[in-house]
Amino acid sequence: MFDLQKVLSRIDPLNEEAMAKTQARLDDLTKPRGSLGVMELIAKKIAGITGQAAPTITKKTCILMAGDHGVVKEGYHTYSQAVTAQMVQNFLNGGAAMNVFSRHVGAELLVVDIGVATDFNSHPLLLKKKIAYGTQNMSRGPAMTTAQALKAIETGFEVAEECLARGSDLLGLGEMGIGNTTPSTALLAVFSGSPVKKITGRGTGASDELLKSKIRTIERALEVNKPTAEEPLAALAKVGGLEIAGLIGVILAGAANRVPVVLDGFISGAAALVASALHPNIKDYLLASHLSDEPGHEMMLKLIGVRPVLFMDMRLGEGTGAALSMHVIEASVKILHEMATFSGAGISGPEKK
Amino acid sequence: MFDLQKVLSRIDPLNEEAMAKTQARLDDLTKPRGSLGVMELIAKKIAGITGQAAPTITKKTCILMAGDHGVVKEGYHTYSQAVTAQMVQNFLNGGAAMNVFSRHVGAELLVVDIGVATDFNSHPLLLKKKIAYGTQNMSRGPAMTTAQALKAIETGFEVAEECLARGSDLLGLGEMGIGNTTPSTALLAVFSGSPVKKITGRGTGASDELLKSKIRTIERALEVNKPTAEEPLAALAKVGGLEIAGLIGVILAGAANRVPVVLDGFISGAAALVASALHPNIKDYLLASHLSDEPGHEMMLKLIGVRPVLFMDMRLGEGTGAALSMHVIEASVKILHEMATFSGAGISGPEKK
Repeated sequence: MFDLQKVLSRIDPLNEEAMAKTQARLDDLTKPRGSLGVMELIAKKIAGITGQAAPTITKKTCILMAGDHGVVKEGYHTYSQAVTAQMVQNFLNGGAAMNVFSRHVGAELLVVDIGVATDFNSHPLLLKKKIAYGTQNMSRGPAMTTAQALKAIETGFEVAEECLARGSDLLGLGEMGIGNTTPSTALLAVFSGSPVKKITGRGTGASDELLKSKIRTIERALEVNKPTAEEPLAALAKVGGLEIAGLIGVILAGAANRVPVVLDGFISGAAALVASALHPNIKDYLLASHLSDEPGHEMMLKLIGVRPVLFMDMRLGEGTGAALSMHVIEASVKILHEMATFSGAGISGPEKK
Repeated sequence: MFDLQKVLSRIDPLNEEAMAKTQARLDDLTKPRGSLGVMELIAKKIAGITGQAAPTITKKTCILMAGDHGVVKEGYHTYSQAVTAQMVQNFLNGGAAMNVFSRHVGAELLVVDIGVATDFNSHPLLLKKKIAYGTQNMSRGPAMTTAQALKAIETGFEVAEECLARGSDLLGLGEMGIGNTTPSTALLAVFSGSPVKKITGRGTGASDELLKSKIRTIERALEVNKPTAEEPLAALAKVGGLEIAGLIGVILAGAANRVPVVLDGFISGAAALVASALHPNIKDYLLASHLSDEPGHEMMLKLIGVRPVLFMDMRLGEGTGAALSMHVIEASVKILHEMATFSGAGISGPEKK
């Protein structure tokens, strides 16, 4: 049986000793102190996560959770629900943006059907872990039962731990699910206390009218279900999604096993927000990737306590931002191994301050 | 003889037909329209530059220009002038951050001594193109003669054209020169009209006192030399640097031969600012990489008319930001070749707007 409390109890603070050693190493490399900015912070954070003063990244894995959403019945979504399954097939065929970027950065891509409203044939890249044929319509009642939400967390946790057992040392989050900016926005409203109107965006490209309908639906979902920040698991069940719950499991697996987890955009951020409410140290194991075009994303990343590096107005999801930023993360770690030191290279340090 | 006017006359507008074809292709790929944000803009821009609707990037080259600055005699610099030559040696030995990042992205790195105050032994990676043993102290008179500035532009142009002849199809800018944020800030003051105080930063890490001295020195250089935005070549000679002039040559070679050029940080930005004053179409051939920690960098990029993708508070130079962003640029082009189309993959397009 999956014991969430036991998993949470395995999450420790960062290793300060390793971080101090990494900082000393960074300060001896042939560059002005701190001049690589956020890259130095990333290197140090990964040292703190792994407990290794000079960590390496040898196997990158992106886990893409796919699930459907009953709330699409409200009718304001740009794409039909069938597109979730069609896109899963596209991932398996290698033709989506996420496939291009995963190949580009040399990351393995795993696709998990955790709740798509369609059945799939078997495929070597597909993990069939369906918990339900999509969530229920959250604007009329809870999206999931608490048992379903917990089962989805467990599924994500197990999928991720299997990756770690096979040698993955950097995990990326990805997702697919028509309608999933709706539960993500609802969760942000719960944990930020912000008015829905202020943080609701156009998702994949809704018009003004559809946007208004989306806002009303999220407001109704909050009224009907009354989720609270004090009960994160219940909030997830009430206004979340199966793929969001699955990604929470991946995050918990990274944190419990001291492996860094790379966020993608708004939906993976919603997962991180709930995970952060489950345990205060979660942010220490997360690396943000990009700032998306969703209006609430910046607030979300601030609440989690992480900082993005790529600013490209992307709003695709799938894990595309996570995959791209893995390249910067790898470079951050490489400087610890490949750069010369001032003393070793015979270079004069600063004369003045 | 190098004929600057003839080079400038070779710079044409972007190829609108290729860009329109690329846009049509982007809109048929399996993603919501525009959802890859700036990556789509980059792909389209490279199509306009190269004239190919589906361009490829097969050989990336970073050109690192090194030069010294007479203004270091004013004594407010954190590092001694000797560090320029020591760092050149570090580049040749492969131990600098720029070496790590160039290797990481698979880019060739060429180091050009265009004006270092030290002689070097021959090395396969070093192009010996010294024009002077550093510039003169620009706070007492012109940094260079106009002939020297023009010669440095010619050198950069020739070095870059040789790279293009060997097959490079993406050029990155890099530089090394203790003191070179000083001429770069002076050039920004000339072309922006902004008060020096507002745009002067700490370079590699100066204290409050050294910063004040830097500001006074730049103000004096502007008073003594009276550079104007209307005479960009004269301004470059008066308050610029040999490596900055060399990078202008690289930019002009890219633009004249329809090859994209990737900016790095503040110093390469100063080169782009002068180049933009020489020809109005320059910005069309430039791709910005990162937003650096220098306070004037954002204004500089806005004046040039380009937009950065990486926000990491880096302030190292060398070409580190250019190299890292080459990876994102490559990914932007790959989507044109590797992604499935809606029709090809049997995926439903948007139903509503």
